Amino acid sequence: MSENAVFSRNKVLTIDTMNPKVKNVEYAVRGPIVQRAVQIEKELREGVKKPFTEVIKANIGDAHAMGQKPITFFRQVLALCSYPELLNDNMFPEDAKSRARHILQACGGSSMGAYSASQGIDCVRQDVARYIERRDGGVPCDPDNVYLTTGASDGIVTMLKLLVCGEGASKTGVMISIPQYPLYSAALAELGAVQVNYYLNEEKCWSMDLRELERSLAEARKHCNPKALCIINPGNPTGQVQSRQCIEDVIRFAAKERLFLMADEVYQDNVYAEGCQFHSFKKVLFELGPQYSNTVELASFHSTSKCYMGECGFRGGYMEVINMDPEVKAQLTKLVSVRLCPPVPGQALMDLVVNSPQPGEPSYTTFMKERTATLSLLAEKAKLTEEILNTVPGITCNPVQGAMYSFPNISLPQKAIKDAKALGQAPDMFYCMKMLEETGICLVPGSGFGQKDGTYHFRMTILPPTDKLKILLAKVNEFHQKFTQQYS
Amino acid sequence: MSENAVFSRNKVLTIDTMNPKVKNVEYAVRGPIVQRAVQIEKELREGVKKPFTEVIKANIGDAHAMGQKPITFFRQVLALCSYPELLNDNMFPEDAKSRARHILQACGGSSMGAYSASQGIDCVRQDVARYIERRDGGVPCDPDNVYLTTGASDGIVTMLKLLVCGEGASKTGVMISIPQYPLYSAALAELGAVQVNYYLNEEKCWSMDLRELERSLAEARKHCNPKALCIINPGNPTGQVQSRQCIEDVIRFAAKERLFLMADEVYQDNVYAEGCQFHSFKKVLFELGPQYSNTVELASFHSTSKCYMGECGFRGGYMEVINMDPEVKAQLTKLVSVRLCPPVPGQALMDLVVNSPQPGEPSYTTFMKERTATLSLLAEKAKLTEEILNTVPGITCNPVQGAMYSFPNISLPQKAIKDAKALGQAPDMFYCMKMLEETGICLVPGSGFGQKDGTYHFRMTILPPTDKLKILLAKVNEFHQKFTQQYS
Repeated sequence: MSENAVFSRNKVLTIDTMNPKVKNVEYAVRGPIVQRAVQIEKELREGVKKPFTEVIKANIGDAHAMGQKPITFFRQVLALCSYPELLNDNMFPEDAKSRARHILQACGGSSMGAYSASQGIDCVRQDVARYIERRDGGVPCDPDNVYLTTGASDGIVTMLKLLVCGEGASKTGVMISIPQYPLYSAALAELGAVQVNYYLNEEKCWSMDLRELERSLAEARKHCNPKALCIINPGNPTGQVQSRQCIEDVIRFAAKERLFLMADEVYQDNVYAEGCQFHSFKKVLFELGPQYSNTVELASFHSTSKCYMGECGFRGGYMEVINMDPEVKAQLTKLVSVRLCPPVPGQALMDLVVNSPQPGEPSYTTFMKERTATLSLLAEKAKLTEEILNTVPGITCNPVQGAMYSFPNISLPQKAIKDAKALGQAPDMFYCMKMLEETGICLVPGSGFGQKDGTYHFRMTILPPTDKLKILLAKVNEFHQKFTQQYS
Repeated sequence: MSENAVFSRNKVLTIDTMNPKVKNVEYAVRGPIVQRAVQIEKELREGVKKPFTEVIKANIGDAHAMGQKPITFFRQVLALCSYPELLNDNMFPEDAKSRARHILQACGGSSMGAYSASQGIDCVRQDVARYIERRDGGVPCDPDNVYLTTGASDGIVTMLKLLVCGEGASKTGVMISIPQYPLYSAALAELGAVQVNYYLNEEKCWSMDLRELERSLAEARKHCNPKALCIINPGNPTGQVQSRQCIEDVIRFAAKERLFLMADEVYQDNVYAEGCQFHSFKKVLFELGPQYSNTVELASFHSTSKCYMGECGFRGGYMEVINMDPEVKAQLTKLVSVRLCPPVPGQALMDLVVNSPQPGEPSYTTFMKERTATLSLLAEKAKLTEEILNTVPGITCNPVQGAMYSFPNISLPQKAIKDAKALGQAPDMFYCMKMLEETGICLVPGSGFGQKDGTYHFRMTILPPTDKLKILLAKVNEFHQKFTQQYS
């Protein structure tokens, strides 16, 4: 080969030679619309004139970025764990110091810089187990079934990894709700599994429907091997909180149809609507009696990123596995060991979430005040969002019963749909892109989460500060009317 | 189906129905021998009598767990970032405060609790780029080519994910050194790629050999499509530091043979032997001129876990990609966005590593003192380990030029090999297991890293405190002689 031929070669790794499964991955929450929002922010900084002065990012459940303050106690303990010299300082309350000592004594060399056990620090897993027992009214939890994770996403992907196999008609199918959080579709694409859609019932406040589950499963069995059923409760992007009855039905269905259950419960403290209550899948499973609690396989997921703490950046989380085959569990433990351990500061934070200040401890009052204030404010903003959106002609919004998002239905004029299609864009992407360019508001189109054909939505977080949220909602109202007029 | 049939069903997820690729994963560094070590620790705590009173874990490069102290400055800044109230406190030096402000102003809502950009915080990537430029004598680095990661492992697995595709004879092959760090073999097993072994030359101090690369590649091309070549320098588990000439040869080889280069350089500050120096693959690539620097695709990896900081628990790291096809880069950015972002405390720590105290700043003297003390001590222990091991009849140890491990060759008597095989164990696993049971020393058998057929090794970290390291080496000496006698 001539020198020239050697050097004028094409790349080894090109779009044509790369992993095709990775190409199939889509993740709308940080997709093209968010990339454009970042560009616009840059243009604004460079002085480009726009019909607005700031981009409002309502695309992602990132509470601190939207001004929510961290819980003081959590951050005091994290500072103490980071720099244990501070244990000698008088500025920290005693309970913060004792929590820091509790965590540090469980770290190698008493340092957060040591690797932990791959499954997570022992004492943190024990604290998680006690938290789950309290939460579920005494249903027992074995710390050996608890795995700490790098956020909930990590746990979910790990579980899917274990489940997926086969080719052709025996390829693993995984049932996910539509609309869904796109981590699921992304992970399934990457793993080459079959995404099996079941639709939430928008007319009934995005509830799960047993007949729809049956339809979806029967359909899927014609071309793949459905093995797992994923549920997000409270719902993302849809904000519903499932009733106890519904959860019971889902568990009976999973038992009957031999499906591994995956319950994404990261919004378990984010329940706002009157009459709604969070029921963990595990608790309901055990209430159904040993026929179910001894057999149905369940993995449930929690995180430090949502609820009242909103500590996304620390990437803390856990999963609990129930009725997992011991041989599979050994494989799971081996698999997580390859990545050594979840980040220790995230593990420490997870410990604080499940082992928060108790009545009588010095930090209790402040902790409760901060927690309650955050959750009340979220409840208020959930209500506000639903109410204002429902005043807009052409927008219909289900109650935001929980989680951090509204997912309203938007009517789009035929001409807009036609124009979008001519551009090769989903109509609600076309709509959201226009809204971003004209108002600076960054939302995620419903097509990024999935929706019934011919319906259109967007996901909007309820996280901006109340003042800003009101401005945002007024702008959405104005834009929607203008858009409707323009394309009618 | 009867009620009974419903409930007496087998598990959905069993060892037979799970992902077979996961079953193929092996990770010796936290494998069966470490699990046994943890058990023994528990037995000791419960009062079980053993011929030793403590387990010494020399299986993993976990510096803080072995008593190494964190760098004061790093931990001060992390405490400030965790609890910014401390910025008002007089106990912290001004440079620590200014670094904390630098990091916090780049975080959403000035909080480490916000998600960062998926590629990592902008200012941290800029600081990384400047660090790389300084390290490489001015070779330019574009921050857009820098991706922050969850430890180096995360970056390596992500790159392999992009590269792997095909089936049968067109399946992607990835060349890795033998001995290797088992993350590589584990990731390749999970991805279903072909592991292509090239052997390091133990006789020449574990150097890379061009002819061996050629042999390995030619062999591999008969049954797969080799696309990438991975190098660990300084070496893990083998501790060699590659010469500039060798790196040049490898780059020319990769250019000629169209291989994507992956350079694992996490031990770049861990160079101890006289006459040895760390050369980054990127620097050498650019010194070879534009024919190479404009064409050869390279990803290099660094981490907060090793060198003088040893902050494994924070899971911080970065990768730099050179000459990556822009379309592939867009796919990479999309892929990492699915997992939202690397842990922000780890990103902050990475920033401190690449932007450490400078002459004239208040923390400079202490920082340099701590850094130098740690590296000197490691150099001393590297020498000590090599020297003592080489006094043992039947053990031959190459110089520990860099990294954190010795990987001595051990002669095992035929009877031991036979007994091991009868138990279905690798002979060096049999040896290490016996050593653990009799002395409490936890090492990793060479078979977990790969080695030439018929040779046996173990990997031992040089991290224990000098006193303990001496005891450990004396015990290894004694055990080896006893073992040899017993099986001769």
